[in-house]
Amino acid sequence: MTRASTNLGVDGGRIWADIMALAKLTDPDAAYTRRSFSKLFLDGREWVTARLREAGLEARVDAAGNLIGRSEGSDPKLGTILVGSHTDTVPSGGRFDGIAGVAAGLEIARVLEERKIKLRHALEIVDFLAEEPSEYGVSCVGSRGMSGKLTRAQLQFANAQAERLENALERVGGDASRLVEAERSDIRAAFELHIEQGTVLESGGIDIGLVTAIVGITRIEIVFTGAAGHAGATPMHRRHDALVAAARLIDRVRVMGDEYARADRGYFVATTGIVEAKPNASNVIPGSARLVIDARGELRETLLEFRERLENESLSIARSASVERTRFEIVSDTLPSVCDEKLRRLLKGAADEIGLSSTDIASGAGHDSAFLSLIAPAAMVFIPCKEGASHCPEEWSEPQEIAAGTAVILGALLAFDRA
Amino acid sequence: MTRASTNLGVDGGRIWADIMALAKLTDPDAAYTRRSFSKLFLDGREWVTARLREAGLEARVDAAGNLIGRSEGSDPKLGTILVGSHTDTVPSGGRFDGIAGVAAGLEIARVLEERKIKLRHALEIVDFLAEEPSEYGVSCVGSRGMSGKLTRAQLQFANAQAERLENALERVGGDASRLVEAERSDIRAAFELHIEQGTVLESGGIDIGLVTAIVGITRIEIVFTGAAGHAGATPMHRRHDALVAAARLIDRVRVMGDEYARADRGYFVATTGIVEAKPNASNVIPGSARLVIDARGELRETLLEFRERLENESLSIARSASVERTRFEIVSDTLPSVCDEKLRRLLKGAADEIGLSSTDIASGAGHDSAFLSLIAPAAMVFIPCKEGASHCPEEWSEPQEIAAGTAVILGALLAFDRA
Repeated sequence: MTRASTNLGVDGGRIWADIMALAKLTDPDAAYTRRSFSKLFLDGREWVTARLREAGLEARVDAAGNLIGRSEGSDPKLGTILVGSHTDTVPSGGRFDGIAGVAAGLEIARVLEERKIKLRHALEIVDFLAEEPSEYGVSCVGSRGMSGKLTRAQLQFANAQAERLENALERVGGDASRLVEAERSDIRAAFELHIEQGTVLESGGIDIGLVTAIVGITRIEIVFTGAAGHAGATPMHRRHDALVAAARLIDRVRVMGDEYARADRGYFVATTGIVEAKPNASNVIPGSARLVIDARGELRETLLEFRERLENESLSIARSASVERTRFEIVSDTLPSVCDEKLRRLLKGAADEIGLSSTDIASGAGHDSAFLSLIAPAAMVFIPCKEGASHCPEEWSEPQEIAAGTAVILGALLAFDRA
Repeated sequence: MTRASTNLGVDGGRIWADIMALAKLTDPDAAYTRRSFSKLFLDGREWVTARLREAGLEARVDAAGNLIGRSEGSDPKLGTILVGSHTDTVPSGGRFDGIAGVAAGLEIARVLEERKIKLRHALEIVDFLAEEPSEYGVSCVGSRGMSGKLTRAQLQFANAQAERLENALERVGGDASRLVEAERSDIRAAFELHIEQGTVLESGGIDIGLVTAIVGITRIEIVFTGAAGHAGATPMHRRHDALVAAARLIDRVRVMGDEYARADRGYFVATTGIVEAKPNASNVIPGSARLVIDARGELRETLLEFRERLENESLSIARSASVERTRFEIVSDTLPSVCDEKLRRLLKGAADEIGLSSTDIASGAGHDSAFLSLIAPAAMVFIPCKEGASHCPEEWSEPQEIAAGTAVILGALLAFDRA
């Protein structure tokens, strides 16, 4: 890896200390888990709030539940530069996904404060609410809210304890009834640092990924309903086994995913991440089985074609397994989004100036930046992570890698502010 | 259906009242659920204990956790006649599976008391502990204990809360350290009434099934381990998706089950009843997946061949899906068992005398009687149930069907006692 000749005052040790401090706020039985809306999540935000204030920012939670630290600019007419990511995790996730981006924002605020740089734009460091799929079946809750894309229907989604998202929002300091106040038109540039969650940078020995586009993500919930029955007394030919249908569809999702990935139709992946059989007892034929399928693509038309094939395949599998497909629901659906060309040039310039190698890269993961790009110029910086591991405890980036990405954003932000 | 010309004093209304009273002791959110070792289960046993005492029996819980109501016979040298089944259920199960057999025993005790019939043998009415697969991964806990087949290893099995079976046993009045005291050599005849859990009797309009044999049951736990990873950022060709391997094996289990069922190799069924993916989140590639497979057959060699094929197929599926098969464990394994010929003749004679139609039938379900048959002559009576539904809330038998089966056991029991 090329080492940075200058880091513009960014201190990798401080960023690292912040990340490790947040890592301690985890479910001890399932490190690293800090689920959005949980007690641990609120503990983490209390900690981040204190850091924001130490960096000289004013902290508040907006109506969409985003934690925002703000310092005003010297020219109020110029609007806001935003740097942010998220502090929530998947169950048994990692320490860096999202958190590194929030820590980068904190460090940028500290460096500006230390170096007594007064920006012309206002600066906001943001911890977006619930970027990971929440217990309420919605991801990117905060950035959806900020871009006016959190729907009334989504606010009614409930978790397993029948609490609605609108009520959960209130628990974390948001307010569904004033959601419109969270919508923003003053953001002139939005930056996000994130681990790559892949191996392009690591295997190529490249410091910085300049994200070109963020995949669109379609999430589909499918339920097969058959008939529960005694696993011993129900002859094979009389079975309506919902899990057999689900299993066949899981296999098809994989095979179709492989096909589209090999075809020259943009980046594409498809995953069955959730399976639930009922009653899930060893001596009962499963009467129902639920799957959640996640498909992502750089090109909208590839995603739509996959969805149509899934719709047809799931129906024909249900028929051949003598069960019914009782649910086929698009539970979320985001369009592919393109990063802002001008901000990307500024990021490239900053990387070059600091002496860091960089490359263009597509993001296979969804990010808050995809929603930000609907209301503002948005761009992302990827940093290398070990073996591409993500959403797991092994997730890892080196302190100097995170510092390098932070310096690139700081450099681009300063150039943007001056321009 | 042929109507019984006499029921030997058996009152279907009383049996029905008992069954419906127990049905009320259910998890209200998942009727009908009364899991072994639960508070509801102990409530049910308290209720049964009161009924046993009302019928003139002495009630106790043996070291294996069986609830036993006993009345001594006039000739202590002759040993014991046992009538029993179980009161625990699967999650969201039915009101009749097991419970009808315990209610039949209660009614037999009441009729003997009312008719002032003093048996020469001692009589025991038994509610066997945990016939259904328990949270500890063992089924037929009580009848295994009574026949000396509850192993030290099984006593160490733990539930999800890390409680061991030996400790759970103590909670329900048993005692793992004195388990040998529960082993019996004095039982001369064991009878069990049970719903068919199939449609042979109903579709043939037959009152009584005289069980010839109970299938052997092999239960196998298989775990595939791959690598959890980001569902968006991990390209298809770099995946180690444990759920894809599990799904392919679920399909194979079904296909092999169909093959053996069609072949002329005795009754055979195979089911994947449990699937658990981890972390089971929509945007994470499953890093591990666990299956529990239940295979049952009338012939031991068919079961052994299925198991060998499953062993080979699961390994080759793991290889082709780039994951590892990290567990292949026979978690339980019972031999097929044959019902006692002499007791079956007495049951047939009683059915004929009462005017009930009957047929020979194999049991695809395991039963406590399979363990009892290891230490005593044992026989089972099946009664019709609606559409073969079992292990589900729709489970149903008519009061007169249960009364007819009860009368057949009472008739056979009286004949056995006189002989």
